[in-house]
Amino acid sequence: MSEFEDVVARVRERVDPTPSERAELREAAGRLVARTEDALADLGVEADVMQVGSTARGTWVRGDRDIDVFVRFDPDLSREALEDLGLAVGNQVLPDGHEEYAEHPYVKGTFEGYEVDLVPCYRVGAATEIQSAVDRTPFHNVYLRERLTDALEADVRLLKQFLKGVGAYGSDLRTQGFSGYLTELLVLEYGGFREVLEAARDWQPPVKHDPEAHAAATFDDPLVVIDPTDPERNVAAVVSREQVARLQHYARVFLADPSEAVFFPDSRLALDPGDVESHLARRGTNALAVRFDAPDLVEDQLYPQLRRSRNGLVRGLEHAGFEVLRSAAWADETAVLFVELATATLPAVERHEGPPVHVGEHATGFFEKYENEDVYGPFLDGHRYVVERERDVRTAAGFATERLGEVALGTHVAAVVDAGDYEVLADAEVAALAEEFGCELAAYFDPTP
Amino acid sequence: MSEFEDVVARVRERVDPTPSERAELREAAGRLVARTEDALADLGVEADVMQVGSTARGTWVRGDRDIDVFVRFDPDLSREALEDLGLAVGNQVLPDGHEEYAEHPYVKGTFEGYEVDLVPCYRVGAATEIQSAVDRTPFHNVYLRERLTDALEADVRLLKQFLKGVGAYGSDLRTQGFSGYLTELLVLEYGGFREVLEAARDWQPPVKHDPEAHAAATFDDPLVVIDPTDPERNVAAVVSREQVARLQHYARVFLADPSEAVFFPDSRLALDPGDVESHLARRGTNALAVRFDAPDLVEDQLYPQLRRSRNGLVRGLEHAGFEVLRSAAWADETAVLFVELATATLPAVERHEGPPVHVGEHATGFFEKYENEDVYGPFLDGHRYVVERERDVRTAAGFATERLGEVALGTHVAAVVDAGDYEVLADAEVAALAEEFGCELAAYFDPTP
Repeated sequence: MSEFEDVVARVRERVDPTPSERAELREAAGRLVARTEDALADLGVEADVMQVGSTARGTWVRGDRDIDVFVRFDPDLSREALEDLGLAVGNQVLPDGHEEYAEHPYVKGTFEGYEVDLVPCYRVGAATEIQSAVDRTPFHNVYLRERLTDALEADVRLLKQFLKGVGAYGSDLRTQGFSGYLTELLVLEYGGFREVLEAARDWQPPVKHDPEAHAAATFDDPLVVIDPTDPERNVAAVVSREQVARLQHYARVFLADPSEAVFFPDSRLALDPGDVESHLARRGTNALAVRFDAPDLVEDQLYPQLRRSRNGLVRGLEHAGFEVLRSAAWADETAVLFVELATATLPAVERHEGPPVHVGEHATGFFEKYENEDVYGPFLDGHRYVVERERDVRTAAGFATERLGEVALGTHVAAVVDAGDYEVLADAEVAALAEEFGCELAAYFDPTP
Repeated sequence: MSEFEDVVARVRERVDPTPSERAELREAAGRLVARTEDALADLGVEADVMQVGSTARGTWVRGDRDIDVFVRFDPDLSREALEDLGLAVGNQVLPDGHEEYAEHPYVKGTFEGYEVDLVPCYRVGAATEIQSAVDRTPFHNVYLRERLTDALEADVRLLKQFLKGVGAYGSDLRTQGFSGYLTELLVLEYGGFREVLEAARDWQPPVKHDPEAHAAATFDDPLVVIDPTDPERNVAAVVSREQVARLQHYARVFLADPSEAVFFPDSRLALDPGDVESHLARRGTNALAVRFDAPDLVEDQLYPQLRRSRNGLVRGLEHAGFEVLRSAAWADETAVLFVELATATLPAVERHEGPPVHVGEHATGFFEKYENEDVYGPFLDGHRYVVERERDVRTAAGFATERLGEVALGTHVAAVVDAGDYEVLADAEVAALAEEFGCELAAYFDPTP
């Protein structure tokens, strides 16, 4: 057995559900579907019930205990009625559940120890006729069940665990990685786990696949996999180019030197405040953190806002003359925009270039504006007027305190900043972040692909 | 009388030669030409003698005491013979003189208290047939004497003094400004001193003039004045765009608010070391100076080398991650490359971007090179590999000490640097420069157009 096969065999032993796990899940799912059908009958509603998701196929990784049940209503039903009925059924089936909201509301709860999503949708004739994104899911289920053999299902589990191990699994907007459905399509498309890695090793983005050869739109994304059930949709639309690069990188690493650790990396040891100070001292950099209570948002809203805010802060600092070495954004109870700078303090003056002298009134206006001001110059540099004028903010902390409201921020972060409900930490003060973000700081100061 | 005319009248009183100055110069020049003709007769050489330059016309500014005499030999004479005969005549006419070297040797000396250049050249039929740049001068003289009226001569004197006052007079490679001949052509072209200023006020470089409408070449320079005696030559080729902008700026200033001070600015008060320290403290910057014995070169060689060296140092520093606010180069007994920086110390690490992960072997090579090195990373930023590696030099002084030999330097400066014959001054240490360069530092810290 090759080293590759040897490692993969050991991983299979850890990710394949056991026969008893399969049997228990199958039986529980059967009872859940039956109970849902009973509830529909009780309510006198006509709808069919369908188990979907990885546990409806054989593609879940051992230990995942999620059952997804979709209740498919007549497409002529109004949206409002669908939502009401969906919640009524959900609450009856999962009396201890709670309502969540994706594109429309659904009920999330537990059933015999399993996490259950009970989602109402429309029973449309084709995925192209969907009224809501969730209407598509049953079509995915049908498509995959018709094509996935046991061997391919097993390889999907491997690829899922591989992507989890490297941090690229999940189509949420925090991860911007590979969804379960995309993982299944890639294994189908390339023919197996190893084949996916061997292909990814040599990818030249943009990488395009159209399993049903029916694409009816074009996409700019680095990875394009046209949905076999919807010619206008790229299943990989959310995958960032960094996640594409990540899969590619680890595919190469793993094929060259197979190791179980890629699937199951050790978790990082959280840093303590002293570690953070040591790292900053060793790197000779200056740190800045903007910290506030994490806005009460779902992750798919929170992380894009943090990303936007972090980019806004970095661009604002750079525009103000600071050099940023690296940055990050984290959230838990509090949220943090973290920036590491090459510069502690900027000069008291900043260069400000005026127009070329020959640009008539514009040039005269510049000269006259600054002629009697307390600046250095105007003087000439080549054919331009230049002044050196007093700088607004000389420290990054000063910028974060005085000018943060001027940069592009996520909506809820902007509200926090407008209200002044944030704290600015500089240099040694950021060490205090280790209490809440020790693992994030560990990853920051020991970055890997 | 308008304010303009009033100021100009007062300047005329200071720059117009007095009648006695004119008479004395005319008589001395006559005796000098006669003595030169006698010397030629003594040597049995056939050549004619011609007084040229501003004192041969009426365009010299009061107090200038230069007489230029050209001895024109048969163009069939060999270059060697011309040089020998030229020096023989020169040494006989100016027994206390010394030899200088432009495109070929000539004798410089004094005669009755006047500075005299006695220059051999060829008596060619037209300026286009010249064998050496100096052969052109007699043609300039003829051209201008035929066209300059007394009034225009007086306006040439005004414009010369104006350009001297603002620091734009002189076609040497230190100044890169307006030559006497160019000044005369501009006054001829526009019709007077005021007309030159009014035109310059609205210049849109490139500004092109071709008085004889015979241009036989094109030029990229910001100011182009085709030589009336040579269709292939731009008389203003040496004028930098900064000097064009300078004339334009002061033309505007003077026309808007005429003042004698533009012609005769007060000289600056030299700074002392304490002043330099105060300025740096007020500006919150970091200074660096590289100082060495000034190479023994004529100014036309020295200043281009210093300019090149200063640019090389600045680019080298910027490439190494430092932000340069401003720089200068000065020479007297020693020469100095002076740089003012926004950054004192850079981080211990620097960001180093690798290739995109998909670029096959190049990407793999980058990853493998750094994988086991003592760097932060490799990690991913978007689709690229990045590492943060140890920085070579963290201070500007360190750069000047260790890496100066790697940047583009003037030839003689490179030799100085290779030999290690230079001194690096940082921050407060640069205050010591005030002893030799107090005026230059005064101009640096109070820059004007």
